[in-house]
Amino acid sequence: MDRAPRVVQYGLGPIGVECVRTLLERGEPGTLVGAVDIDPQKVGLDVGRLLGRTDPVGVTVTDDAGAVLRETDPDVVLHTSSSFLDRAAGQLEACIRAGAHVVSSCEELLYPYDRHPEISRRLDALAREHGVGVLGTGVNPGYVMDSLALMATGVCRSVRHVRAVRVVDAALRRLPLLRKVGAGLTPEQFQAKKAAGGFGHIGLVESLRLVAAGLGLTLDRVDEQLHPVPAASEIVTPEVTVAAGAVAGIHHTAAGFVDGDERVKLDLEMYAGAPDPHDAVVVLGDPPVDLLIRGGVFGDTATVAVLLNAIPRVAEAAPGLLTMADIPLLRARAGS
Amino acid sequence: MDRAPRVVQYGLGPIGVECVRTLLERGEPGTLVGAVDIDPQKVGLDVGRLLGRTDPVGVTVTDDAGAVLRETDPDVVLHTSSSFLDRAAGQLEACIRAGAHVVSSCEELLYPYDRHPEISRRLDALAREHGVGVLGTGVNPGYVMDSLALMATGVCRSVRHVRAVRVVDAALRRLPLLRKVGAGLTPEQFQAKKAAGGFGHIGLVESLRLVAAGLGLTLDRVDEQLHPVPAASEIVTPEVTVAAGAVAGIHHTAAGFVDGDERVKLDLEMYAGAPDPHDAVVVLGDPPVDLLIRGGVFGDTATVAVLLNAIPRVAEAAPGLLTMADIPLLRARAGS
Repeated sequence: MDRAPRVVQYGLGPIGVECVRTLLERGEPGTLVGAVDIDPQKVGLDVGRLLGRTDPVGVTVTDDAGAVLRETDPDVVLHTSSSFLDRAAGQLEACIRAGAHVVSSCEELLYPYDRHPEISRRLDALAREHGVGVLGTGVNPGYVMDSLALMATGVCRSVRHVRAVRVVDAALRRLPLLRKVGAGLTPEQFQAKKAAGGFGHIGLVESLRLVAAGLGLTLDRVDEQLHPVPAASEIVTPEVTVAAGAVAGIHHTAAGFVDGDERVKLDLEMYAGAPDPHDAVVVLGDPPVDLLIRGGVFGDTATVAVLLNAIPRVAEAAPGLLTMADIPLLRARAGS
Repeated sequence: MDRAPRVVQYGLGPIGVECVRTLLERGEPGTLVGAVDIDPQKVGLDVGRLLGRTDPVGVTVTDDAGAVLRETDPDVVLHTSSSFLDRAAGQLEACIRAGAHVVSSCEELLYPYDRHPEISRRLDALAREHGVGVLGTGVNPGYVMDSLALMATGVCRSVRHVRAVRVVDAALRRLPLLRKVGAGLTPEQFQAKKAAGGFGHIGLVESLRLVAAGLGLTLDRVDEQLHPVPAASEIVTPEVTVAAGAVAGIHHTAAGFVDGDERVKLDLEMYAGAPDPHDAVVVLGDPPVDLLIRGGVFGDTATVAVLLNAIPRVAEAAPGLLTMADIPLLRARAGS
């Protein structure tokens, strides 16, 4: 892409709105040419309104994705409408058929081959046919527990075990994350909600499978655990109050095994009041690697950054359904 | 490459020999089919002899690179013969003309466009013509102070400054590194050797330029500083003894400026007895990133690992003269 890529924003929830804000403020890595959302309260508004701007941006929110894709001829669609690939697949296909690369925050798209083999095959074939790349990414899944873990092994001649740890103080994050981790629920409510499914961090197993595949491992067993973390004392955040003994958040782990040996372990704690937030990757290998991001990567901003930073890299990659292991090195554009 | 790539090892110094050892031990990421060195003491020997093996490997060292390239039809050449691109260029061209991808430890090849624009253009054109990739890499330059620094910015919406720090206790490393940092010299000897050129860490400015280019920055000034670090007291290592007041090693920095603002700073300390060896990347951006590799990446092993791990990635990239920012995510192959 020699010109600045033309970008359609598909989905205007909190992440989508921040993508739009960053695109408009920086004019990079592309130009906003369209905006799609099905929320009747947003349809028909100038996107500037969603950012709290008084001046119009000149792009009106529509629920007719087909029309926007036809009329704006985008180079890239930033897709931030669903965590689940079965719900997103039709939307992604429409973008691909319109000849647009897709960068999506859909967690299940990070490494969709195991959970959705049929959709994966379809998306891959369609993307190749139309000469575009389709990538699922974000900060987690997408960076701290998978891409960064793989990158850490780049200096190793051999790898026996990879462990990625993320500790997030959910009290510092926005309300959707606090809801996602069950902050404020009673232990009984937590278990009921967990049993109903679609709860906890989405994409942890996808991260695990991406790391394993990147290392050339074929996992024969995956062990996923999701437990509530109780509040030792009352926690008051701007968004929610957690009584002592209520759920402060989650401890979510995924482990991948080959021939009975654990080879990859992901360990995620997200709860209000979590001490010492950080990201870490520990590689048992030759040589070993002990990597730490002090304070951790701040998720809300970073997810938007990863999505935007992936745009030029997806355009450089070979067409098809891509993972973070397929695109050139992710990095920011520093600006002048 | 569907079959295991056929690899010629070009250069059998310490790094080249370790590449061969790892290839033979692991059978990955390729099969050794040839070995080149000009040292008369090595020519004619089975490469197993260079590894201290008693059983022959079946590959004989030759000084006739042209013959090996013709006869073995390699997919990849691992090139570890020179730090300087003007000396290496002819060798690299022969490999490219033979239709082989090249992964080289030549420090000046990491980002050769500024120091060697004419050679860069020639290598790029030739590599495209022959449909192969040519990459300069290693642990430093190649990973800790450049690729990892760029990767750390991947979560940032904007970047004001990037600083990469590497502290190496040279006493733990092999003799060539101790020589490279001047361990044991008097301050006068150090300054004389520095004035004669070709001293200190080679490739620091190349790392700086790779980081800047990856971030989309055009540097208008580069400031490079090389100072000796004196030994506070006598240091005894297995390889060398440094008297109190003599040179223990180097402090080498490079800074890149745009419009008078420092945007990238690389800070390298390599001296015998350096406390708290580590690698760090600090990004002033949105969000900020504070990344640390505790203990640092052990260079001797890691350089070999990076060279070998780059092989499949170079084969996946588009043909031409490549940098670490052009190839898919570097990672190890874990084996089973």
